[in-house]
Amino acid sequence: MRRYLLIAMMLAAALALSSLAAAAEPLPSWNEGQAKRAIVDFVQRVTTTGGADFVPVPERIAVFDNDGTLWAEKPMYVQLAFALDRVKALAPEHPEWQDQQPFKAALEGDLKTVAAGGEHALLELVMATHAGMTTDAFAQVVEDWLATAKHPRFNRPYTELVYQPMLELLAYLRSNDFKTFIVSGGGIEFMRPWAEAVYGIPPEQVVGSSIQTKFEMRDGEPVLVRLPMIDFIDDKEGKPVGIHAHIGRRPIAAFGNSDGDLQMLQWTTAGEGLRFALLVHHTDAKREFAYDKGATSALNEAEMKGWTVVDMKRDWKVIYPSAK
Amino acid sequence: MRRYLLIAMMLAAALALSSLAAAAEPLPSWNEGQAKRAIVDFVQRVTTTGGADFVPVPERIAVFDNDGTLWAEKPMYVQLAFALDRVKALAPEHPEWQDQQPFKAALEGDLKTVAAGGEHALLELVMATHAGMTTDAFAQVVEDWLATAKHPRFNRPYTELVYQPMLELLAYLRSNDFKTFIVSGGGIEFMRPWAEAVYGIPPEQVVGSSIQTKFEMRDGEPVLVRLPMIDFIDDKEGKPVGIHAHIGRRPIAAFGNSDGDLQMLQWTTAGEGLRFALLVHHTDAKREFAYDKGATSALNEAEMKGWTVVDMKRDWKVIYPSAK
Repeated sequence: MRRYLLIAMMLAAALALSSLAAAAEPLPSWNEGQAKRAIVDFVQRVTTTGGADFVPVPERIAVFDNDGTLWAEKPMYVQLAFALDRVKALAPEHPEWQDQQPFKAALEGDLKTVAAGGEHALLELVMATHAGMTTDAFAQVVEDWLATAKHPRFNRPYTELVYQPMLELLAYLRSNDFKTFIVSGGGIEFMRPWAEAVYGIPPEQVVGSSIQTKFEMRDGEPVLVRLPMIDFIDDKEGKPVGIHAHIGRRPIAAFGNSDGDLQMLQWTTAGEGLRFALLVHHTDAKREFAYDKGATSALNEAEMKGWTVVDMKRDWKVIYPSAK
Repeated sequence: MRRYLLIAMMLAAALALSSLAAAAEPLPSWNEGQAKRAIVDFVQRVTTTGGADFVPVPERIAVFDNDGTLWAEKPMYVQLAFALDRVKALAPEHPEWQDQQPFKAALEGDLKTVAAGGEHALLELVMATHAGMTTDAFAQVVEDWLATAKHPRFNRPYTELVYQPMLELLAYLRSNDFKTFIVSGGGIEFMRPWAEAVYGIPPEQVVGSSIQTKFEMRDGEPVLVRLPMIDFIDDKEGKPVGIHAHIGRRPIAAFGNSDGDLQMLQWTTAGEGLRFALLVHHTDAKREFAYDKGATSALNEAEMKGWTVVDMKRDWKVIYPSAK
């Protein structure tokens, strides 16, 4: 009996010291201000045992959009840059693409014509570059591409253009026993190969758009083949649907940056008890990009409902991690 | 510096003692024999740091079928019993069901006629009883039903007819840092309301069949409405697809009991490194049920590939937890 007591005391002491260390300076890249205060206040309230706003550990679910919330989405979505590079890489096997839109425009780097083709053209590019191989093969293609591709303006790998303050926020939440999820309009299979190394978010906590896959036996070995058919679009009204399908309970905190995140923030904040919603507002043309386009409804609702809005220029000491 | 060393030593001592305690008798309801030895051997090998078969913690994913693997599936799937009871409960609002199959047969308890209607009849029953309400409302209906429904033979709540040896196996794996998932042909929303309390498996680790849901605003409040349309069937070839969609990496251990689990076991064991596959064989007519129907292909492949087969009668000291 005394031995168990001793172990319990050791554990309690060790845990108390380790959480003291974590609490010392949880968000070093955040300037003091309303946004940082709101985050810390929320976390303290939901983790204070016996407090009115206490949330048990299993319900501490936090969801993060990816493009524009955790990493840069300008001048174009990273996944679109990937698709365009893949069209070029695959072009020798597809001589017909030289005269066929949207492939011709993609090969010529003529983004205006690609964009003019609308959703249908984008879908064609995605299917031609994301389907027709096994899931393992696709993950490898993504990893290989990310290992060499660089952002056209910052000339750094895309996985280094993640927001340092958001990395700290993810770590801060996890040190307070939150489970952190990505809920992105981007492809689930495009994010999973690197999300664990870059964000500390394992594949099973990544939610995104998907194409269909099919189980097959090839030479006696089971494979999953990616089919050129949309399975699910995890954007706008789709985000609460994706959250429910994958997580099965309502998050208590949601982080986004655009109108595509609005329904996710509505769904999260409509739950009972204390909830937290945050929008990253891109205000820093010098260090990153400045734009409101595609975010005006979300920003309006944030103001109306008192959601936290991060002003990148004002609130973040640095944008990206130091170069390695 | 010395303080950190002391903490590290305390933690190491506490952890060593606690894992000793857990290792002492991890599977008390399992008889000594090949099945228990195979489980313990696998777990020891993948958790031995520096060993040839060591698996890092994040990759310790174990998947469990539910019906017939974690709880009883005879004389009928629990979810079918639920659907039939719901037809009775909803009948007053549907006078047309008195003359309309498969509802007429369901109301009369004429399972033979329901079964004769095949998949189409079952689908009609499922849609009439599982769709048309919000996700929150459906979860409540499931909880309310489970609180009063009883198994026709054992006269106990269904959630008490889970297999005690499998509860111990789930706990044993988790104490060795496995993440345990359900991957069931049953409805994902039918399992999530109780899986955490009964199995210790949180909603985000439950994979199952699903119908479509839709995000809507009702009186300014966001809701998710369940639609009478199949979204995904998580059975047979669907199980590896469901695993990939939800978990995003290949499990290292899979547990099932029927042909519906065959592809999940194939997919799991085809991965690199040490893998584990187990089938629960229903051999105990006295304490549970004895049947091979629907499991013959899986049992054949288990024999061919040397997968572990549990003989319920021989390997399990008890089947169900003690009555509360």
